[in-house]
Amino acid sequence: MNKSIARIAVLVSGGGTNLQALIDAQNSGIIHSGKIELVLSNNPNAYALERAKNAGISAVCVSKKVCGSQEVFEEKLKAVLKEYEIDLIVLAGFMSILSESFIKEYPKRIINVHPSLIPSFCGKGFYGLYVHEAALKYGVKVTGATVHFVNEVPDGGEIIMQKAVNIRENDTPETLQKRVMKLAEWKILPAATEKVCQQIINGEKE
Amino acid sequence: MNKSIARIAVLVSGGGTNLQALIDAQNSGIIHSGKIELVLSNNPNAYALERAKNAGISAVCVSKKVCGSQEVFEEKLKAVLKEYEIDLIVLAGFMSILSESFIKEYPKRIINVHPSLIPSFCGKGFYGLYVHEAALKYGVKVTGATVHFVNEVPDGGEIIMQKAVNIRENDTPETLQKRVMKLAEWKILPAATEKVCQQIINGEKE
Repeated sequence: MNKSIARIAVLVSGGGTNLQALIDAQNSGIIHSGKIELVLSNNPNAYALERAKNAGISAVCVSKKVCGSQEVFEEKLKAVLKEYEIDLIVLAGFMSILSESFIKEYPKRIINVHPSLIPSFCGKGFYGLYVHEAALKYGVKVTGATVHFVNEVPDGGEIIMQKAVNIRENDTPETLQKRVMKLAEWKILPAATEKVCQQIINGEKE
Repeated sequence: MNKSIARIAVLVSGGGTNLQALIDAQNSGIIHSGKIELVLSNNPNAYALERAKNAGISAVCVSKKVCGSQEVFEEKLKAVLKEYEIDLIVLAGFMSILSESFIKEYPKRIINVHPSLIPSFCGKGFYGLYVHEAALKYGVKVTGATVHFVNEVPDGGEIIMQKAVNIRENDTPETLQKRVMKLAEWKILPAATEKVCQQIINGEKE
């Protein structure tokens, strides 16, 4: 690819705090090899859609419920991604499972942030607050977050960046989730996005 | 237990750099609720034995080869530990497996340092350089070390302390091993030893 800037889509489902971190990083210049051209939500009520509009970014909802089937849902997603000529898909709290065939159409073009230090507390069943519950139950003293490429193995794609966060004695899943977001996810998701955008515009790994 | 100071045995097999970290921590006062009374090696040529002697600590070798069987070996270990009235056993690069029945005789009285962030890269087959090889092969960007109580599950006992170490792009298992020792093991092994000694003299968890 010979582009001067990579076109980014951020896929969301909820409040969009990771999206906000990406928007802030774009405004401050941390992300400068890519531009967020599209925010795609599977949930019409996601506050992330408001954040996108407030930042002047196209905000589109593709509802699985309305689509009726996974196949139609993914065809619709692909059509929108194509329409916006997207180079990089960033999953930022996107709570809908994508099929293997969808993922295989975007090799090294989908990244995800996971709230643990993979390979700890990842894979099937480990999402959202459950990840932090599992970490506290196990009794680890250090956790963190991971940004990785998405492949057909859940949380199994190549790791791009990780950041550690110390657990405190009185942490609950909720306090830990907040701190991992603030200290790790909101730092490494923008940094990893910039890194992958640089690889894309430099034509690496194609 | 109502003691003013816990009596520590450090079990070693090799160079004894973790032992040296413990001796240094004792000299600097980081460890003040316990005292290293005994260094026990299963290898007569372990340099750790020299370190012990240089620090004025009793150094004893119990060779499994000489003992002939695991049972005799462990009986001999137990006799020496009893002779020195040991309260806490610190495994610091002790490369000999201890049986379940041995471990069960010292509940919450044996601690070990493992060169990864458990539950990543731990359990059977993960020791020494192999741990770092596995971490690099997996492609993690953060690793570290863990001090944990030893129970009958390999690397499965309660975690006492952990410390993260960032992996560098050009790390080899050897460079990573050295950095994890320096930045993590040599910090948390003395700190965790002091913590457990405090619990012992305060009569906690008995």
